Amino acid sequence: MIARTIEWKDNKVLMIDQRELPAKYEMLTCSTYYEVIDAIKNMAIRGAPAIGVAAAYGMALAAHSINTKNKSDFLNRLKKAKIALSSSRPTAINLFWALEEIWKGVVSSDEPVDELKKKILLKAESLAQDDIKTNYLIGEYGSTLFQDGDRILTHCNAGSLATVFYGTALGVIRSAFKEKKNIKIYIDETRPVLQGARLTAWELQIEEIPVTLICDSVAGFLMYQKKIDKVILGADRIAANGDIANKIGTYSISVLAKTHNIPFYVAAPTSTIDFNIEDGKGIPIEEREPLEVTSIMGKKIAPDHINVYNPAFDITPNENITAIITEYGIAEPPYIKTLNTLLTKNKR
Amino acid sequence: MIARTIEWKDNKVLMIDQRELPAKYEMLTCSTYYEVIDAIKNMAIRGAPAIGVAAAYGMALAAHSINTKNKSDFLNRLKKAKIALSSSRPTAINLFWALEEIWKGVVSSDEPVDELKKKILLKAESLAQDDIKTNYLIGEYGSTLFQDGDRILTHCNAGSLATVFYGTALGVIRSAFKEKKNIKIYIDETRPVLQGARLTAWELQIEEIPVTLICDSVAGFLMYQKKIDKVILGADRIAANGDIANKIGTYSISVLAKTHNIPFYVAAPTSTIDFNIEDGKGIPIEEREPLEVTSIMGKKIAPDHINVYNPAFDITPNENITAIITEYGIAEPPYIKTLNTLLTKNKR
Repeated sequence: MIARTIEWKDNKVLMIDQRELPAKYEMLTCSTYYEVIDAIKNMAIRGAPAIGVAAAYGMALAAHSINTKNKSDFLNRLKKAKIALSSSRPTAINLFWALEEIWKGVVSSDEPVDELKKKILLKAESLAQDDIKTNYLIGEYGSTLFQDGDRILTHCNAGSLATVFYGTALGVIRSAFKEKKNIKIYIDETRPVLQGARLTAWELQIEEIPVTLICDSVAGFLMYQKKIDKVILGADRIAANGDIANKIGTYSISVLAKTHNIPFYVAAPTSTIDFNIEDGKGIPIEEREPLEVTSIMGKKIAPDHINVYNPAFDITPNENITAIITEYGIAEPPYIKTLNTLLTKNKR
Repeated sequence: MIARTIEWKDNKVLMIDQRELPAKYEMLTCSTYYEVIDAIKNMAIRGAPAIGVAAAYGMALAAHSINTKNKSDFLNRLKKAKIALSSSRPTAINLFWALEEIWKGVVSSDEPVDELKKKILLKAESLAQDDIKTNYLIGEYGSTLFQDGDRILTHCNAGSLATVFYGTALGVIRSAFKEKKNIKIYIDETRPVLQGARLTAWELQIEEIPVTLICDSVAGFLMYQKKIDKVILGADRIAANGDIANKIGTYSISVLAKTHNIPFYVAAPTSTIDFNIEDGKGIPIEEREPLEVTSIMGKKIAPDHINVYNPAFDITPNENITAIITEYGIAEPPYIKTLNTLLTKNKR
């Protein structure tokens, strides 16, 4: 079994460093919130739910480092940390959501600074615990969609490593496998950062879930050969109408799945839904540096000074999505209604 | 300007070694037909027209090495070389076509062995020359399809390096650029062997044709953003009905282009057409070793012992193809008629 992706220990944040996996398995220790920002930016930790929790722990690190008893001074300095953490990556909403969850507990409180510090850490810990519970629930709901014999395509890593533990899309796969469903997984390698080849292949192999690695461009040909029965993947942000932002390549897969009448499922916690954004066009798409494309693990694979377009995510419109699996149940179109209903029914 | 990909010099075959481009530019010298087979298998030379000419030169090397005046002995030993050369790669038809072109000139002749040896070399040289002329013609016909402002997607390398010189799909792009058409190229990196990133990006950069490199999974998102006006790429084999085999990923691009109403053009010499094969289902698809996917330029990017599915090509059905550009003109659907008409009208 794979270890927890991120945790708090001895006033530090420990995380699995995902940059060199599977060749190197190492823990990264962050003692300051700056180090957490770096870890998010350089993708030592990635995955929408995981970076949400990382940001929350980053706030706990920031809070503990602020040496004052003066509350307004404390809040001012904590706010700086919040702004810095929120600038680490733009697309996944979970990061902003987690920061707000921490922040609203602090500003609404009239406790002294020392109590606030404890409160922030407790909240970060509870967000981490909630993420695990959420993933188990997503797994339970989602696995009802899989049958014996299903050959399932997934993209990028919506696994344990993308969350605190268990995973969203891979959580569904894990749950189906635990229920002894006879399933087979195809994983896109997911260029440029190769989260599929490096992380998902590794996670599934550890648990002996049957997995076959393919280049991203093979998915369509597998569908043409009728070798894919279902697609499941995660999301970095879901607009109010059910459009999603997810790892670059997701849109292409959705078009291919639709063309071949293959169900296309998205598994994500409700913290990924951004009701403030009407549709996918409003979701900011991060563009990352050319070097991610022109060099692989330090090996140059393209001419110097070549122009590169390297969006980290793309937008998949709701009409290409068969269902969205959340911890509160499965939403089907029209998402503008069903996502709202799920949330209001389950408001904690 | 880029050099000729392959030529005969001092009784040896010289070719640009494409394996380490663009990091290393080196010539590979083949003194025996075995070395030509290795060069084709390990992709030191690749691209349907280029490996056709390589096979023809391989026959010339084989002929020159056969030390006999006895004609039937000569033919027996030459046939062995032909069989060995034809087993180097299975999908591109040009290889088999070139071998047959050489062979039929030999078996139909009543000249002595020494004359046959000269004849084989002359035929190989003329196939190489014809390839260059063919590409210029394809370029001329094809460039009529491009307009000022076109943003054109291509995949893999159907460039000078895939032919003796000038290229098929890149030949069309070169011709349009020479005619001062204001075009912009997007090139898929083309995993796993990265012919797009390593070869096409390099070819276009040398000639200062505006090019932007993308990961294969970005093409769909560019179309979604209305940033692609046309697609052009090559083919490794064209069935009688116009279905094509081409580099893995081509099928996905064709589906995406169709969904977005983007013209999808195939540029290939008529030697790529296999009238003996009714449709794409009959074209043999080469599967290559897992290591091509699990390791990039010697760097491991996936767990050990992972299952891999690594088809080198896929099939694109004729209904996804807007037109096929050949040296005799442009064929449009229904290809079963139009390809035949082009060929019979121009039978040399």
